Amino acid sequence: MPVVIVATIVPIAEHREAVIAALRAAVGHVHDEPGCELYALHEAADRLVLIEKWESPEALAVHREGAALATLGGALRGKVTGAPDVVLLQAVPAGEVAKGQL
Amino acid sequence: MPVVIVATIVPIAEHREAVIAALRAAVGHVHDEPGCELYALHEAADRLVLIEKWESPEALAVHREGAALATLGGALRGKVTGAPDVVLLQAVPAGEVAKGQL
Repeated sequence: MPVVIVATIVPIAEHREAVIAALRAAVGHVHDEPGCELYALHEAADRLVLIEKWESPEALAVHREGAALATLGGALRGKVTGAPDVVLLQAVPAGEVAKGQL
Repeated sequence: MPVVIVATIVPIAEHREAVIAALRAAVGHVHDEPGCELYALHEAADRLVLIEKWESPEALAVHREGAALATLGGALRGKVTGAPDVVLLQAVPAGEVAKGQL
């Protein structure tokens, strides 16, 4: 069963551009990981948000132990206000398939 | 420019099923609104999360004043812990297009 994640990262203001650069660099590597269906970076004035979809909980578990996330964690150290807020979700199908699910 | 939204609704526990039913009913109507590219419902144990993509800020503005959202607001009254938490986002392109954006 696929897993959807919304992960919010709050940069320390002076490090915002470095945080974005580290996240953009990570995205390309994560896209190559098995079972990654979506790993899409977004920004608001005060935060960065990754919207993710993984093929299975097992694929997510491998991602969490993988090199891309470890490298990202190192790059973000000292540049963010704390650990990311990570929300795990399941799709609730409704309406049209094309617009009703990631 | 498209707008991505993550909207979080926290149901009062005893009304969770009614809240999900109201949201599922709304999704079909919202999919028919102009400029709706994605309006996808998700659940976690303690919350419901809509991940949305609108073609433009103008389309989002029309949605916000529309019948579907008004009906939903009425159906949720007294069944949720407060106003939804709505986060407006812009995509930050990175990596593969198919996996790097909604």
